[in-house]
Amino acid sequence: MTDATPVTISAFDWVPEFARGRVRDLIVRWALEELGRPYRTVLLDARQPRGPDYLAWQPFDQVPAYREGEVELFEAGAILVHLAEGDERLMPRDPAARAKVLSWTIGALNSFEPPVRQYSLLAVFQRDQPWCEDARDAFRPLAEKRMQRLADALGDAEWIAGRFSIADIVLVFLLESVAEEELVARFPTLVAYRARGTARPAYQRALQAQLDDFTDEAARGPTEGA
Amino acid sequence: MTDATPVTISAFDWVPEFARGRVRDLIVRWALEELGRPYRTVLLDARQPRGPDYLAWQPFDQVPAYREGEVELFEAGAILVHLAEGDERLMPRDPAARAKVLSWTIGALNSFEPPVRQYSLLAVFQRDQPWCEDARDAFRPLAEKRMQRLADALGDAEWIAGRFSIADIVLVFLLESVAEEELVARFPTLVAYRARGTARPAYQRALQAQLDDFTDEAARGPTEGA
Repeated sequence: MTDATPVTISAFDWVPEFARGRVRDLIVRWALEELGRPYRTVLLDARQPRGPDYLAWQPFDQVPAYREGEVELFEAGAILVHLAEGDERLMPRDPAARAKVLSWTIGALNSFEPPVRQYSLLAVFQRDQPWCEDARDAFRPLAEKRMQRLADALGDAEWIAGRFSIADIVLVFLLESVAEEELVARFPTLVAYRARGTARPAYQRALQAQLDDFTDEAARGPTEGA
Repeated sequence: MTDATPVTISAFDWVPEFARGRVRDLIVRWALEELGRPYRTVLLDARQPRGPDYLAWQPFDQVPAYREGEVELFEAGAILVHLAEGDERLMPRDPAARAKVLSWTIGALNSFEPPVRQYSLLAVFQRDQPWCEDARDAFRPLAEKRMQRLADALGDAEWIAGRFSIADIVLVFLLESVAEEELVARFPTLVAYRARGTARPAYQRALQAQLDDFTDEAARGPTEGA
């Protein structure tokens, strides 16, 4: 493969308003924009069950899936690692620096995101449950601890692992996607870090491309959610 | 670095009985055993706060952290990718086959584990809460859906992505660590897959090494958990 091999990613053609700018194809679009790499999208109808062809490409029935010649990947984090392996703009080649980027990229997805997401989505999906507040109280300490650890590790640095890398793409996306701003707002260094990330022209182009791929909400009927 | 560079990993010197064989240094020990690569452990007291030196190595204050000469990593998944990059026994070099292993490895950690863990740990850590059963009912469908998707994708295959790879190390570890056996037991192909993984001599050696590193439970006082 070369940089000329066409890239295809999957995305949804519609999601509810609150999810716009938070769907994970944005992670991959951003990385591709950082590399100046064109891509095309296969748009999925979020309200129709996907068939076996899509499950063979993306077994968890999510977006994004990725195709580049004979190479197929699913899972935004895996696609990022794949894209970064060949390009120092997303991950340094020096073994120690590269190890740090890999650690933060996967740490963001497996240690930072789950407790933060678990806590912050309760208020979205369980808000009508009588036990919602009790569960929030139970899950909040771990979410806050992870935010605190990230803030401590970032300190005054511009990016989390030396130069800008895929670790920042994941972390800034996750901070931008936290359903409860109040969880982030307590950490001014993380608010500033997120703002540095989303100010990058590549992020802005990726976000616009995701939004442009959604059909007009008014043109659609009611949905059960994406 | 060469295969002769000494490897050090962190682990706990004690965890409660239910967590033994389920602490994540096992993932890395297993991969190292598959490679026949010796390592030494730095044992942490799970009941004492770790200091800034350890947080500089492992910012989320978990195990395992990894050191190999000047290369330091944290997060089991990142360590696996690092180990696998240099060795076809853990990940093929062919780009398409490698992409599949990367996808399943990170998919296991970011799409499979969080809902399964969230559901199954409720019965461990929230079992005395009056809302525990309601939360279990709310979180169970997504956990089951992920198990079903994994079972569908595995089908009759021996391993998830062609030959044995780091994707199997993560998935078998996660299946073995699910706090509720009943969630796995409904899927005979996953039970058999897990048994194939844990029957590997490298897994058995890794498990024994983790267990051997725990101090005698009777010699310790009560704990607040690890």
